[in-house]
Amino acid sequence: MIHSETFVEIATLKERNLIALKEAREAGRHAVGTYCLFSPTELILAAGAIPVSLCGTSQKPIPAAEKVLPRNLCPLIKSSYGFAVTDTCPYFHFADFLLAETTCDGKKKMYELLGELKPVHVMQLPQIQDEAALEYWLLEVRRLKERLENEFGVQITGKALTEAIRLMNEERRSLQALQDVCKAIPSPISGLDLLTVLHNRGFSVDRRAAIGLVDRFAAELRQMAATGISPFTESTPRILLTGVPVGIGSEKLIRIIEESGASVVCLESCGAYKKVEQVREDGDPLRAIAERYLKVPCSCMSPNAGRLELVERLTREFRADGVVDLTWLGCHTYAVESSVLKKHLQQRTGLPFLQIETDYSESDTGQLKVRVEAFLEIVHRSMKRTA
Amino acid sequence: MIHSETFVEIATLKERNLIALKEAREAGRHAVGTYCLFSPTELILAAGAIPVSLCGTSQKPIPAAEKVLPRNLCPLIKSSYGFAVTDTCPYFHFADFLLAETTCDGKKKMYELLGELKPVHVMQLPQIQDEAALEYWLLEVRRLKERLENEFGVQITGKALTEAIRLMNEERRSLQALQDVCKAIPSPISGLDLLTVLHNRGFSVDRRAAIGLVDRFAAELRQMAATGISPFTESTPRILLTGVPVGIGSEKLIRIIEESGASVVCLESCGAYKKVEQVREDGDPLRAIAERYLKVPCSCMSPNAGRLELVERLTREFRADGVVDLTWLGCHTYAVESSVLKKHLQQRTGLPFLQIETDYSESDTGQLKVRVEAFLEIVHRSMKRTA
Repeated sequence: MIHSETFVEIATLKERNLIALKEAREAGRHAVGTYCLFSPTELILAAGAIPVSLCGTSQKPIPAAEKVLPRNLCPLIKSSYGFAVTDTCPYFHFADFLLAETTCDGKKKMYELLGELKPVHVMQLPQIQDEAALEYWLLEVRRLKERLENEFGVQITGKALTEAIRLMNEERRSLQALQDVCKAIPSPISGLDLLTVLHNRGFSVDRRAAIGLVDRFAAELRQMAATGISPFTESTPRILLTGVPVGIGSEKLIRIIEESGASVVCLESCGAYKKVEQVREDGDPLRAIAERYLKVPCSCMSPNAGRLELVERLTREFRADGVVDLTWLGCHTYAVESSVLKKHLQQRTGLPFLQIETDYSESDTGQLKVRVEAFLEIVHRSMKRTA
Repeated sequence: MIHSETFVEIATLKERNLIALKEAREAGRHAVGTYCLFSPTELILAAGAIPVSLCGTSQKPIPAAEKVLPRNLCPLIKSSYGFAVTDTCPYFHFADFLLAETTCDGKKKMYELLGELKPVHVMQLPQIQDEAALEYWLLEVRRLKERLENEFGVQITGKALTEAIRLMNEERRSLQALQDVCKAIPSPISGLDLLTVLHNRGFSVDRRAAIGLVDRFAAELRQMAATGISPFTESTPRILLTGVPVGIGSEKLIRIIEESGASVVCLESCGAYKKVEQVREDGDPLRAIAERYLKVPCSCMSPNAGRLELVERLTREFRADGVVDLTWLGCHTYAVESSVLKKHLQQRTGLPFLQIETDYSESDTGQLKVRVEAFLEIVHRSMKRTA
């Protein structure tokens, strides 16, 4: 596939934003590092600070992390800690402090060690999505507001919060529109290119400019879809990928699926479709933020019916022919939830389902290729039956 | 060591109590199964029901569990689920419902699957021990009270709660007195025998009778210590074992340590010394219960300073010559915390420290023996230096 100028512009955002971030810091602006979709970005923006995504999708710093962390932790946690301890994530380097949440055991305990390298503000995330949990979480959102106000000597006004919510909703709208382009048959973009855009865009310092870029790119893709330009054909199997967070450096499985002749049309993960739900723009902005973030259907929630519903809905909207559920080795929550999801989808959609457990290394690439190819055989057969 | 009648009586409690439990159930009494030290036993007692410890310390049912659960979960979780799914834990069988808590990722998600076999009441356990967390936990304690009242058609009175607290405090006092006997040099009882008593006693239906038995046994041991009867000598290395929960069926490491010539004088784990802290007997009983249980220094808490303090204090009180930190394979919280504990103890006590990561199987016994023997060499040398 020949990449458009817009694609190249977004794909190089991560590097270029670094300069923008450095300059902003030198001009006295603050930055807060985040790891997770549960971090309420709106509060950081409303405090006049820059929210920055921290690195955690590369194999490279993992050996350094394993000197301290257990080797059987998931690669995402080891990579995040490895980047920090080797000081090779510039976004970590430039952050005033880190914003973290008690999502899973490994991250929660890793943050204790991270606290020795950089100040960490840990939000206590409940593990259920009911009324009492919302009130507890709302207290945590308020505590974050106070931390930001004290740390940066500012006051976070209701007006600033409302503006931040609008900006973030605009971003979510643009990200959803981009991903929805893949509903076209065939999708005009590969899953790997889509991930490249979603991943690099996440490091943008100027959010409005990034929204403009994403909108422009989505318009180009719609144009391609309308004129039938695509790296795939109408009969290419369409795969929905669900499970753990994926980024550039940990895109192995997407690459293998597409090299094996399928098209990854939907990423139901933190950096992709889990992200698009809007925050209410009426009522108390802090409560609206708390409500929206607590609803994220992460496997750290128990039960996590929201994910079953979301994946099922997306298989229909994106007309998926099969579902691949990715689990990072050592991620207990996604690993256990896989059997629940499999059962749900088999009852409700009958789609072929494959769980893959792997890490960031390339050591099992050959084995994964064999498994994915065998799975795609099943998908092909199931497509013929329903054709 | 020749075992006294009292020892044998306690060591066979698990089997004999089963008959008592069956009869009590047939007479219309209710039973609630618990897995964890965070379960507020007082509420179950105050509801007139029998709290029963559920099985989870044997390798046997693990293969059955691995048909559904990921293999890299910790053996305790797999064993617990395996007993349930094969219906081989009579205590599980006789329970009206199960009481569970959101302690770690693996348990939390396993309980979702367990819910298909038996009703499960999950308490939302906070992961920090501050004021806001206490209020949230207190709501959970109240919600459990309501569940018990509705489920069993009873009303839990303040008087019944206060009586249950007194009974449980009496039990805690007796368990502490028993373990404190091991402060004698040499300890009159092996760590393995101590575990046998602590483990089997845990299955008692008649708690008052069990307290009497434990008190009688402790008195016997004090008598032995006074007259110098012991399986050890004054120069036997004294080991404090900390880390994950251990029981009969998962006592491998204690056995290896003692077969290698040391004496395990203190078990700082859920079933042993973590259990002995009293509940306040004044003020609101529900709040007193919530306070006490939230304080348990489990590695699922972050930060978990209480464990560092407790282990340090116990090394002094029991005059330990070395610390062994046991982690079940796949238990991320104890695995990560081990480096924190090691650093703390080295700064504060200078004691030799060994972390062991293993499971319930016997496959690594030879390897463990080698590591433990090498560690005890270091302990011997360190004892000579400080003598």
